[in-house]
Amino acid sequence: MKFAIAQINPTVGDIAGNAAKILGFYERAKKQGADLVICPELCVIGYPPEDLVLMPSFRKKAMQAVKNLAKKTAKGPALLVGSVWEEKDKIYNAALLLGGGKVAHIQPKICLPNYGIFDEKRIFCAGDGPKAAQWRGMKIGFLICEDVWNSTLSAALKKQGAELLIVINASPFETGKLAQRKKVAAQAVKRTGLPLIYVNTVGGQDDIVFDGGSFALDAKGRVAAQLTEFREHLEIIHPFSALSTQHSALSMEESLWSAMSFGLSDYVRKNGFKGVVLGLSGGIDSALSAACAVDALGAARVKGVLLPSPYNARASIEDAHASARLLGIETMTVPITPGMEIFDEVLSPVFKDASWMEDVNIGGNVQSRLRGMILMAVSNKFGWLLLSTGNKSEVSVGYTTLYGDSCGGYNVLKDVYKTQIYALAKWRNARGLVIPKRSISKAPSAELAPGQKDEDQLPPYALLDKILMLHIEGRKSVEEIIAKGYAKTVVEKVVKMVRMSEYKRRQSCPGVKLSPMLFGRDRRFPLTNGWKG
Amino acid sequence: MKFAIAQINPTVGDIAGNAAKILGFYERAKKQGADLVICPELCVIGYPPEDLVLMPSFRKKAMQAVKNLAKKTAKGPALLVGSVWEEKDKIYNAALLLGGGKVAHIQPKICLPNYGIFDEKRIFCAGDGPKAAQWRGMKIGFLICEDVWNSTLSAALKKQGAELLIVINASPFETGKLAQRKKVAAQAVKRTGLPLIYVNTVGGQDDIVFDGGSFALDAKGRVAAQLTEFREHLEIIHPFSALSTQHSALSMEESLWSAMSFGLSDYVRKNGFKGVVLGLSGGIDSALSAACAVDALGAARVKGVLLPSPYNARASIEDAHASARLLGIETMTVPITPGMEIFDEVLSPVFKDASWMEDVNIGGNVQSRLRGMILMAVSNKFGWLLLSTGNKSEVSVGYTTLYGDSCGGYNVLKDVYKTQIYALAKWRNARGLVIPKRSISKAPSAELAPGQKDEDQLPPYALLDKILMLHIEGRKSVEEIIAKGYAKTVVEKVVKMVRMSEYKRRQSCPGVKLSPMLFGRDRRFPLTNGWKG
Repeated sequence: MKFAIAQINPTVGDIAGNAAKILGFYERAKKQGADLVICPELCVIGYPPEDLVLMPSFRKKAMQAVKNLAKKTAKGPALLVGSVWEEKDKIYNAALLLGGGKVAHIQPKICLPNYGIFDEKRIFCAGDGPKAAQWRGMKIGFLICEDVWNSTLSAALKKQGAELLIVINASPFETGKLAQRKKVAAQAVKRTGLPLIYVNTVGGQDDIVFDGGSFALDAKGRVAAQLTEFREHLEIIHPFSALSTQHSALSMEESLWSAMSFGLSDYVRKNGFKGVVLGLSGGIDSALSAACAVDALGAARVKGVLLPSPYNARASIEDAHASARLLGIETMTVPITPGMEIFDEVLSPVFKDASWMEDVNIGGNVQSRLRGMILMAVSNKFGWLLLSTGNKSEVSVGYTTLYGDSCGGYNVLKDVYKTQIYALAKWRNARGLVIPKRSISKAPSAELAPGQKDEDQLPPYALLDKILMLHIEGRKSVEEIIAKGYAKTVVEKVVKMVRMSEYKRRQSCPGVKLSPMLFGRDRRFPLTNGWKG
Repeated sequence: MKFAIAQINPTVGDIAGNAAKILGFYERAKKQGADLVICPELCVIGYPPEDLVLMPSFRKKAMQAVKNLAKKTAKGPALLVGSVWEEKDKIYNAALLLGGGKVAHIQPKICLPNYGIFDEKRIFCAGDGPKAAQWRGMKIGFLICEDVWNSTLSAALKKQGAELLIVINASPFETGKLAQRKKVAAQAVKRTGLPLIYVNTVGGQDDIVFDGGSFALDAKGRVAAQLTEFREHLEIIHPFSALSTQHSALSMEESLWSAMSFGLSDYVRKNGFKGVVLGLSGGIDSALSAACAVDALGAARVKGVLLPSPYNARASIEDAHASARLLGIETMTVPITPGMEIFDEVLSPVFKDASWMEDVNIGGNVQSRLRGMILMAVSNKFGWLLLSTGNKSEVSVGYTTLYGDSCGGYNVLKDVYKTQIYALAKWRNARGLVIPKRSISKAPSAELAPGQKDEDQLPPYALLDKILMLHIEGRKSVEEIIAKGYAKTVVEKVVKMVRMSEYKRRQSCPGVKLSPMLFGRDRRFPLTNGWKG
C-alpha cells in the first residue's frame, strides 16, 4: 500500500475552499499512485474553529462537504480527512476514512486538550474508544493529535490487531515542539511495535502557526519519512522502512524566524490585506519587524513610516532610513511635532497646567498615540495592515502606550523577549545585513523625553527577561523568584508591573505564538486581580 | 440548627482580603447565634480565578487561608467556604466545611461547566461523587453550582440519608437567571423532598456581575428565604418553613440597570480608580452611560468631556450640556477642530490627496481617534477610568472606530442592543429625568460628516437588532435568517459586517454581561474566518 501525506494549509471556516484544496491534493496523489491520502486534523474546517462549531449550520455544511469528498473516492485511493462530525446530538472532532464513495470509518477524538491554547472540551464531546479499521486487507488504527500522548489508546489499537498507526494533527509551533512530537510518537511505536504516520497541519491562524513537519516512523522507531516545515507539501511515503538520510533540524533562530514570517504572511493573505505598514523608529524592534515582514511578503508590500518628534536623536532618524535602505522598502515621513503642539495648546487650559506634556505618563502617551493615529490613517488610506512592534518584555511589564505603539492588527514580536530579539537580529544579519548595526548596539530608548533610556525605568533587559521567564513561563511567585537569589525590590516591581498592565494586553492585537506561554491564549489572567504573589 | 447565609463580594486573587471578609461575616453571624455560616463558591479566591489557579503558590496560599479560617471555628458555629483545594496532584473547586477548628469535610465540585463564560475544565479536576456530611446530628449534602443542575447528584445525596441540600454558587447575572436558578433548585427539592439552601456570590469581576439573590426552599419547594440582589448581605434563615410574604422580582429594566451600575462600581472600586470620565456627544448612548455612572458612583466622581467638531449640530452640544446639567456632573470642552486641521495638513501631502478628510472611513476615523486621544489624556492626567460607550448593535457590526470611540477601560453598554438602550432610557427617566428627551427622540448620528445619520449606513435599528439577535444569540446562519422572512441583501450585509469586525471586538474593553452571549466571553470567534454563513 502506498501512503500519501497531504500536509495542507486550510483556512478556518472556509469549508468550500478547504474541501477544494483537499480534493486538489487527492487528485495529485491519485496520479502518483497513492492508495491512501492522509490529511490533517480538522482540515475541512480549519483549526482552531472556536465557537463556529457551535453553529448548527456550520456543522451541517462541514458534514456535507465530507460526504461530497467521499463521493469522489468511488474509484481511486481512500482519503482520510479531519472534520467536525455530529452523531446523536454529540459533536466530535473526528478522523473520517473516505473510500469506495462512502464514509467508511469514523474515529472520534478521545483525548480533548483543554489547556494552553486549547479549548476542545468547550466545543467537542470526547469519543468512547479507538476502533481499528479494516481497509483493503490492512488493519489501521487512527488517532487524533492528543490521543497519541495517551499510552493506553495505541496499546488498545495494537490489541485489536492494528498493523499501522495513523495520527492526524493540528499541532501548533512552539520552540522544540517537533522534537517533542517525535519523542511521543517514538514511545507509541516502542509500546506497540507498529509503524506510525504523523500528519500535521501547516499554516497560520491568528496567533497560532502550524509548522507541518509531518513524518513517519518505521516499526523500529526509525524515521521513515520527514516532510518539510512551514509549507504545504504532498509526499508519497513508505512507513515500513527507514530513510537512509537524516533530516537536519532547523536551528532555534531559524524555526522562530520561520514561524514569525509564516504567521504574518498567512494572516495577511487569509485576511486579504494588500501589504503591511509599520513605524520605523531606528530601534531594533521596528527594524527586526520590518525585516521579518520583508522576508514574509517581499519589500514591495512593506511600507515604513518615520514619525519624528523633538525628542528623537538624529541618529535614530538615520538608523530608520538605514533600515529601510537595507530592506529596500519605501518610507514616508510624518512629524508628530505639529500634533504635539496642538495637544499642548488645547489641553493646557483644561488641565490648568502648562508643563503636562513633559510628564512621560501623560505627554509621552500623547506622542505615542499621535504616532498610532498617523499609522492608522495610513493603514485606512491604503489598506495596509498596521504592524505593532512591542516585544514580549515590554508587553509583559506594560512598557507600551495603549492606543499608541500598541496600535496594530498583528505583532510578530509579541512572544519574543528583548534578549531573544538581539539573538534573532544577529542571526538574521549573518544571512545578509538587513538590520542596521547601530540599531543593535545602541541602548534601547522610547525617546519620549530628552535623553530617556529604557533602563532608567526598567531593570536591564538581561535581568528583566530572567525574572519574567520565571514568573510567566515558570508560573513562579514573587517569593519563589526571590528565593532563587533575585533582589526583592526588583522582583516585586517587575511582578507588580506585569499585574498592573493586564488591561493593556487585553486590548492588544494577535501575534505569533512561539513560546509555551503566549499572552491571551496560553496565559489567561483576570484584569481585576488582588493576587500580588 | 440556625443557618446564616453570607452573601459576600470577594475580589479575585485577594486571598487575604477575602479571608478577612469571610471572618467578619462569620463573627457577625456568630453573635446572631448561627450554627452554620454558608459562604459562596470559591469565595476565598474569587470567581472566575482564571489561570491564577495554575500557579502553585496561589493554591498554597488559598489552602493556608482555609486552614487558618478553620482554626477560628474551634468554638462557635461551623463555616462553609468555597476554595481551590489540591489533593494528590488534583486541583479541585471545593466546598469546605470548617468546624471544631478543623477542615471537617471536603466536597469537590463534580460537574465543571466549560461553556459560555465558563472554563472550569481548563483549571479544575472533577470530583468523583457527592458524599453527605454528618454535622452536629444532621446529615447535609453539599453541591457546587453546576452540580445542582445534574439530577443524579441530589438524588444520590438523598439516598445517603441527607436531610438538607446546601448549594454554593458563583452564578453570573443574565436576564431571567434568578427565576431559572429557582426552577432548577425547585426540581432538586421535588426530586428529593429535601429543603435546599442556595447561596450565591455577589459582586462585579471584569465583565461578569454576580447578582446575589441567595434563597432557600423548604421541603415542599416553597420559598423559605430570599436575600436581596446586588449587594452584600448576611441573613439568618430557616430552610424548613416557608416565608409568609413573597419577594417581588425586579423588573427586566431594573435588573439590567442594577447589573450595569453594580458592574461598573465594582470595577472602579476593585481597581482603585478615583472616578470615571466619558465623552458626551448629546446622543442617547453617552447620556445613558453617564446616568448609569452617576447612579453607580455619584455625580462627583463622573466627568463629561464635550469634543465638538465642525460636524456637530448645535443641538448636539446643547443636549450634551443638558445631560450634564440633569445629572449634576462637571464638564470640560475640548474642540477637535484644531487637531483635524493639523492632521489634514500633515497627511495631505503624504496622501497626495487634499480631500481625504472627507472620506468617513479615513477622516471620520481621525475625528473619532482625536476624541479618543483627548479622553485618554484626561484619563491619564486625573486618574479617571475612561468609559467607552459603544452599544451592542454598533459593536456587533463594527460601527465604531478602533482606537477612537472604542477607547476606554469599561463599557456598561457593551451587551445592550440599541433598541434596549431606548427602553432603559425611558425606564430610567420615569424614575427621575436624567436623559434629555431630545437625546432619546432624535435620529442617531455619529456626526462624522455633514448630515450623517446611522441609518444611512445601517438598517433601521429595530430591524438590525432582530437580525443580530438571531445571528448572535440564536447562532442562526444567513440562510436560516432569510428563511424567517428577512431580506437577503440586508441579512448578508449585516452578517458580513459582524464577521469583518471581529478584530475590533478583540481589542475592545470589558463590559457588563447581561445577555447569554457577551462578546469575547460567551462568544469566541476567530479573526481569520472564511465562514460566510
